[in-house]
Amino acid sequence: MKFKINRKFFLEKLNIVSRAISVFSPLPALSGICIQVSNDLITLTGSDSNISIRSSFLASKENQLVIESTGSIIIESKYILEIIRKMDSELVTVDLIDFSKVCISNLNGQFNLNGIQFNEYPNIDFSVPNTKIQLKSEDLKLIYSQTAFACSDKDTRPVLNGVNFKANGNTLCCSGTDSYRLARKQIELNDSYDFNITIPNKSLSEVVKSLSDANDFVDLFIDSKKVQFVFDHTIIQSRLIDGTFPDIDRIIPTTEISHMLVSSHELAGVIDRTNFIRNEKIHLIKLECTESETHIKTSSSEIGNSDEILSSCQYSGENIRLSCNGTYMLEAIRALNCNRVKLEFAGLMKPIKISNPDDCSVLMIVVPVRSYD
Amino acid sequence: MKFKINRKFFLEKLNIVSRAISVFSPLPALSGICIQVSNDLITLTGSDSNISIRSSFLASKENQLVIESTGSIIIESKYILEIIRKMDSELVTVDLIDFSKVCISNLNGQFNLNGIQFNEYPNIDFSVPNTKIQLKSEDLKLIYSQTAFACSDKDTRPVLNGVNFKANGNTLCCSGTDSYRLARKQIELNDSYDFNITIPNKSLSEVVKSLSDANDFVDLFIDSKKVQFVFDHTIIQSRLIDGTFPDIDRIIPTTEISHMLVSSHELAGVIDRTNFIRNEKIHLIKLECTESETHIKTSSSEIGNSDEILSSCQYSGENIRLSCNGTYMLEAIRALNCNRVKLEFAGLMKPIKISNPDDCSVLMIVVPVRSYD
Repeated sequence: MKFKINRKFFLEKLNIVSRAISVFSPLPALSGICIQVSNDLITLTGSDSNISIRSSFLASKENQLVIESTGSIIIESKYILEIIRKMDSELVTVDLIDFSKVCISNLNGQFNLNGIQFNEYPNIDFSVPNTKIQLKSEDLKLIYSQTAFACSDKDTRPVLNGVNFKANGNTLCCSGTDSYRLARKQIELNDSYDFNITIPNKSLSEVVKSLSDANDFVDLFIDSKKVQFVFDHTIIQSRLIDGTFPDIDRIIPTTEISHMLVSSHELAGVIDRTNFIRNEKIHLIKLECTESETHIKTSSSEIGNSDEILSSCQYSGENIRLSCNGTYMLEAIRALNCNRVKLEFAGLMKPIKISNPDDCSVLMIVVPVRSYD
Repeated sequence: MKFKINRKFFLEKLNIVSRAISVFSPLPALSGICIQVSNDLITLTGSDSNISIRSSFLASKENQLVIESTGSIIIESKYILEIIRKMDSELVTVDLIDFSKVCISNLNGQFNLNGIQFNEYPNIDFSVPNTKIQLKSEDLKLIYSQTAFACSDKDTRPVLNGVNFKANGNTLCCSGTDSYRLARKQIELNDSYDFNITIPNKSLSEVVKSLSDANDFVDLFIDSKKVQFVFDHTIIQSRLIDGTFPDIDRIIPTTEISHMLVSSHELAGVIDRTNFIRNEKIHLIKLECTESETHIKTSSSEIGNSDEILSSCQYSGENIRLSCNGTYMLEAIRALNCNRVKLEFAGLMKPIKISNPDDCSVLMIVVPVRSYD
């Protein structure tokens, strides 16, 4: 195996596949990047067995690839990345100099790395699932930024560690929840679909990080076990999370007793300022709303207390006093990323709806907390 | 105690004094900022008992200070910093509302923080030492960046945790060493002095971080126990490290068997590229120099090996092969911060001198390592 390639191009591809690699991999081969060189194609693979990334490329003017001989090898990801990143030549040569040693060289120097033979790499099934759906990269990024933050990071209910993608007819409904809050983003599709899958939060994050501005669209291939995201000769494949995702439509209140329109900037600022007051590590805020004045208060016997008035707030409906997790509220407002937010209240212990009054495709829910003062 | 002040100005002063505060302070009062308000002056103090910072200010057009009543209080540093940073008004009011509760407010809201009564603050002696020396801020920053990195971070010999400032006549000689390497910077003084003190690395670091571009000069006040850095109404006071600093003049070789002139950029690049090969966590490089070629090699049975030629190198003198810590060499080259570096060799196990051929005020020394291959 021997080839010459543009260093920056090679580094970019190595970086993409290395995202799948975990430093804690129990299998030594999985801490490496698998390089397969055929007559005209190079394929790089990285995997932690839950998520696998494969990138393939032919010779092109951009990558200046010249393949001299074929072969395969696994190289420790962190070492090859560091060398290729730090070398300063335009081209590098990669050469398998015996069964498991790779020589990376340019005019001034050479780096010999101990590799692992290709036959120790696990067999990863990259077969393509049947259901294909195309999304704009923009939409996929929005789905991620507006839902993934609400996923659970605890191990108690694995299905809550992912974002649920549910297609019903022409609507794709993506939701994240940790059972105390919920974030939902809806996208209109060109065709009619019917699936209900939950994609691990971490996998979605790697997909979004790997998307460059040049990728306008992403193809998703879905079956009941896995999903593939395909763009720019790169396949990011993730297992799905088993289990039934909660029926979120039942959680969303359908009636209201009052609502509030307020500047997102002001509301986020007021909540953020109370963040230092925590009760047993929880950032608890109290909303006291009347049509004449809305207060946000906090208090902790140890640290102190605060009381701030929302000056831009328009509130109408019944007076309400309730407590909720300020961090959840703040993350929801920031994920909405709009000028004004609407808060709808359905009652004292009923979920609070938080939304953008000018965009009904996104909805946030935060459940109030019982407070005893 | 009650005053109104420009929020940004107040935040800046709080930030400066908070640098001295350690989150691990055993004395609760020392986790706070001490605020003392007299008829016309506000004094802020932060301390971890080794380093103490005091900043005082009168009313000015810039700070918009209006003092309504006098008094003193200690407020938990992280809470007051977070509130003042996140508030969005131009002015804030600080008001002691009972013996130990402080109200920070603006038009929209108020934050009440539990404080600690002033009489619990330890008495810190800010008396001014006799010896005064003025340094350009530029020079003090250079002293720090060119010597402090070489200090030891181990507890075994406390005197090596600081930078030694030794004045002898009109020359100030500043040195840092961990006994395996040395960095020395010399400054010419306008007057004649005679002192020999060792300032903790951490204290120097806080001084340099606190210097703004507006501070052209720093006054140092020195005695045998402490040093004060004074600029812009701020006093940063540090205890000195006891113990005799090694006599560094005895370490610097006076003869040479060979020397090398090389591009700093190239040498740093070559050494940095070998950084991934470590033997028992040490980054060991081997220099092999002849007048025709200079190689930098590394090897590790576990990871692999490398061999690179320095293309810009001019070497003259005896052939030499020696090993040294690549990280030490790299930090010395970076601290010199010049286009070309000169390496002088005195023999196989003799210290290597690393210097800027165009500036004799800075000198770096790295001691070779015995290697058995």
